[in-house]
Amino acid sequence: MYRSHTCGELRAPHIEQSVTLSGWISKVRDKGFVVWIDLRDRYGITQLVFDEERTDKTLLEQAKHLGRETVIQVKGTVIERASKNDNIPTGAIEVLVKELTVLNKAQLPPFTIEDETDGGEDLRMKYRYLDIRRNPVKNNLIFRHRVTMEVRKYLSNQDFIEVETPYLIKSTPEGARDFLVPSRMNEGQFYALPQSPQTFKQLLMVGGMDKYFQIVKCFRDEDLRADRQPEFTQIDCEMAFVEQEDILNIFEGLTRHLLKEINGVEVAAFPRITYDEAMAKYGNDKPDIRFGMEFGELNAIAQHKEFSVFNSAELVVGIAVPGAASYTRKEIDKLIDWVKRPQVGAKGMVYVKYNEDGTFKSSVDKFYDQEDLAKWANATGAKKGDLICVLSGETNKTRAQLSALRMEMATRLGLRKPNEFAPLWVIDFPLLELDEETNTYHAMHHPFTSPKPGQIELLDSQPGSVKANAYDLVLNGNEIGGGSIRIHDKETQAIMFKHLGFTPEEAKEQFGFLMDAFQYGAPPHGGIAFGLDRLVAILGGQETIRDFIAFPKNNSGRDVMIDAPANIDQEQLKELHIKLDL
Amino acid sequence: MYRSHTCGELRAPHIEQSVTLSGWISKVRDKGFVVWIDLRDRYGITQLVFDEERTDKTLLEQAKHLGRETVIQVKGTVIERASKNDNIPTGAIEVLVKELTVLNKAQLPPFTIEDETDGGEDLRMKYRYLDIRRNPVKNNLIFRHRVTMEVRKYLSNQDFIEVETPYLIKSTPEGARDFLVPSRMNEGQFYALPQSPQTFKQLLMVGGMDKYFQIVKCFRDEDLRADRQPEFTQIDCEMAFVEQEDILNIFEGLTRHLLKEINGVEVAAFPRITYDEAMAKYGNDKPDIRFGMEFGELNAIAQHKEFSVFNSAELVVGIAVPGAASYTRKEIDKLIDWVKRPQVGAKGMVYVKYNEDGTFKSSVDKFYDQEDLAKWANATGAKKGDLICVLSGETNKTRAQLSALRMEMATRLGLRKPNEFAPLWVIDFPLLELDEETNTYHAMHHPFTSPKPGQIELLDSQPGSVKANAYDLVLNGNEIGGGSIRIHDKETQAIMFKHLGFTPEEAKEQFGFLMDAFQYGAPPHGGIAFGLDRLVAILGGQETIRDFIAFPKNNSGRDVMIDAPANIDQEQLKELHIKLDL
Repeated sequence: MYRSHTCGELRAPHIEQSVTLSGWISKVRDKGFVVWIDLRDRYGITQLVFDEERTDKTLLEQAKHLGRETVIQVKGTVIERASKNDNIPTGAIEVLVKELTVLNKAQLPPFTIEDETDGGEDLRMKYRYLDIRRNPVKNNLIFRHRVTMEVRKYLSNQDFIEVETPYLIKSTPEGARDFLVPSRMNEGQFYALPQSPQTFKQLLMVGGMDKYFQIVKCFRDEDLRADRQPEFTQIDCEMAFVEQEDILNIFEGLTRHLLKEINGVEVAAFPRITYDEAMAKYGNDKPDIRFGMEFGELNAIAQHKEFSVFNSAELVVGIAVPGAASYTRKEIDKLIDWVKRPQVGAKGMVYVKYNEDGTFKSSVDKFYDQEDLAKWANATGAKKGDLICVLSGETNKTRAQLSALRMEMATRLGLRKPNEFAPLWVIDFPLLELDEETNTYHAMHHPFTSPKPGQIELLDSQPGSVKANAYDLVLNGNEIGGGSIRIHDKETQAIMFKHLGFTPEEAKEQFGFLMDAFQYGAPPHGGIAFGLDRLVAILGGQETIRDFIAFPKNNSGRDVMIDAPANIDQEQLKELHIKLDL
Repeated sequence: MYRSHTCGELRAPHIEQSVTLSGWISKVRDKGFVVWIDLRDRYGITQLVFDEERTDKTLLEQAKHLGRETVIQVKGTVIERASKNDNIPTGAIEVLVKELTVLNKAQLPPFTIEDETDGGEDLRMKYRYLDIRRNPVKNNLIFRHRVTMEVRKYLSNQDFIEVETPYLIKSTPEGARDFLVPSRMNEGQFYALPQSPQTFKQLLMVGGMDKYFQIVKCFRDEDLRADRQPEFTQIDCEMAFVEQEDILNIFEGLTRHLLKEINGVEVAAFPRITYDEAMAKYGNDKPDIRFGMEFGELNAIAQHKEFSVFNSAELVVGIAVPGAASYTRKEIDKLIDWVKRPQVGAKGMVYVKYNEDGTFKSSVDKFYDQEDLAKWANATGAKKGDLICVLSGETNKTRAQLSALRMEMATRLGLRKPNEFAPLWVIDFPLLELDEETNTYHAMHHPFTSPKPGQIELLDSQPGSVKANAYDLVLNGNEIGGGSIRIHDKETQAIMFKHLGFTPEEAKEQFGFLMDAFQYGAPPHGGIAFGLDRLVAILGGQETIRDFIAFPKNNSGRDVMIDAPANIDQEQLKELHIKLDL
């Protein structure tokens, strides 16, 4: 038996007990006549003590020469600690060591195994197994486990059945690029790894499974933006005989359950706003509503004056930044530079200081008098002391720019508090999205999303205006889940495929099995999928999903620890009936 | 709202309530003046009633023409059933229908959706979504969910953390053939899908995770024998600071927990036998011990008589088949034909009838007298009325043949009861296994398995005799789990790689990251992995794992429902820097 207790377990009541501990040496403090060692394992740190009076001389000498991260086993007696350490749970005691066994030696690690390490991102990824020893990473992984356990508990209690769907499936042209897997047994053919179990969960509904969920890996071969992974995890759910309202209730319940069990936070009923409203109020379909700064549209009150920039704009829109009227000219100039950065892309910014004395000072005083500006303040909800920032131009672009500014100001003002949670539903998404490059429409959610009742007729005349039974769950400015009520009849699905530019043959080849299935009695159904990596990061009050994944890949899709992907023997390729084409 | 209750929910106390139900039409019985419909969903069946007296005429007519598997919604009143049906939980009531909506029409399914269907395996696989509507398949999937929930509950309560390891990893030459995934972003390089998360779980131990588990898909590109799947699910576990004893205790606990929670069965402490003992007593390293028929070795008592077949044999070994002394000559001849089948491969079989009157009648009476045969009876544990079956020849082959006969006789005698559970541990497996074709040794478990203490020195002189700290959990004649204590120091691992025929360069290229990791303080560790598909099938009292997988593949690795794998566009291959080589 390697240990009687873990390194996080011993307390005052254990004093005088004989114990065996195993772990890693975290720190050695050598005072000559006495040596203290911090012994670490997953559960905590226990102080070991060796001293001239009570410890065998050889043992004391040995203790002095133990290196960091050496794995040892000790036997000894729990004693009271002279100077208690209230910072750690085992701080009331220490273990007077009688026997010591080195279980494994350790080279000096390439970075320090401490909460604040000296290791850079690259080094930590290469030696991820050492990085995981550090509390921040280790605790994130444990946190993730707790979240998935609670997800399963909640859904299982609600009669959901976790069903494993296959990983070796068929490539579909819709959506992102697939990862492919050549088949050895079926020459010249390929499997694809699933981008999501979408069609399988719909088939499970046709199969009468009624309530399905799965925590499952999904794959997308996309050029990786920061904080995207080629393999990611989804909480995938589907229900039969439901309307949108049923789904929103169940998954609001799940989110509430997690916030309560994991974060100890009770939240009120989730607000629901339409996609159009979200775009108008926040310039964003995943608004962060932990803070205000809602958009005020100024067209009616700011246009038709002498200011041609506004007059020629499709949209004039502003936000009131709390307490920023005190910004100096220089600070405001820097802010204007910020919105003009290519990443934001505004041409300029108009500002209005709503001074504490009730007067206004703006960059467009030439065109607008105090009365005009008071109307702006009213439209943006500005209070004395606020700075009104106004952008103008083409509607969608201007909204996106002001949304970026709104988020930036919230960050600067410390309004995006990691331990505050403001979930909401965004509903009534458009069914189709115009691809401006090709001037064709594609499914905003996916091709199985049902249009709002009665709107299918509009698909021919006004495709862009058709709304879908589609919804996103947004938490703190992130889309953590999204879903829809699905089309469950073959006729509507055929119409959708037509509008998405599939020929009947293409539709049949790609989704024939789903269309076939719909002929045999498909129930009304709908579902949702949560991005687990993101959800866990947000619940954990952090930004980077990579910190919640045990072995993440870098932006080139490489695992730098195991050095994958890698070259392959000719022999193996031959068996798979492929050759390189470089 | 599509339903107020499910089809499995209504009971006598609901009588007089207005309810809304949705589901599939399972059966329509039209008696002219009255129509009964069985409405089915995942939860059960509820009888609907329409009659001349109480139902609107149009509705009654409509009910008569509804086809099987049509999806409908009904509103009505729960009423007492005239003739109760005690076979179903809702049998006390029926629903008098007031309103009916057809939610989706259904074509006639290609096979009947009943417990005993007229659909053959191929048809059921092609229309798996319809097959899943059948109780036997649906209940198996729900059963699987219950098992995984209990596994997670037990392990989580024991402080295990579920950590997701990557699916896009690196190919290793060891073990079975990998599925490969060409990388688009890393030209000419490939990921591999994991055969198991073996190295990652060991790295998690180096990382101090202490207790890891994961229910995870694994992939092997092997020629598929019956009831093997290219993708399968493993309960993968690893622990640090443990000896074999710790692991056996924890996972005996898990198995006991499952048997109790899932099957309601309490089992005694699991027997433990060594690999050598299992081979000698059962001719098999995964013995079914629900019944006896242990091997009796007869060399000492049956050799050195006049019977040359036995005299020249390396092993003479028999079993006592209970109650089979009454077999006729014809039955015994058929049994001899059975052991001579190519699948078994014996050259012949000697038999001894232990008659009820205490006398013996054998096929070798010419060479052995009653006293000799009494010794055989003693060695095989035969009782009056038993048939002793004896095989002889080369040890390993003869054992395998007798094992096959033992299982066959147990099946014929009904001794392999699906609801009886007899788990055991088989321990002390050989470290290495001789590949007779190439005359080289390879790892019996895997290359990270630790030899028994003190035996590493034998690797040079007697490699085949070295035992490993490796163990299998066997249930009802199936290996449901297997694992080992791992090598945790770089030196031993290097010795192992050498004996497995890796050059230091090959070892470094394939496992360099693991060898590197071992330099930074690897704790002693070990683990186990369970084949979930098999485990669930056995707990479910069934033989075929395919029946516990929602969307299985056939023996050519094809998913016949979605028709995968499939051909791929040239364009896609080009992006992946590969071309076909047919």
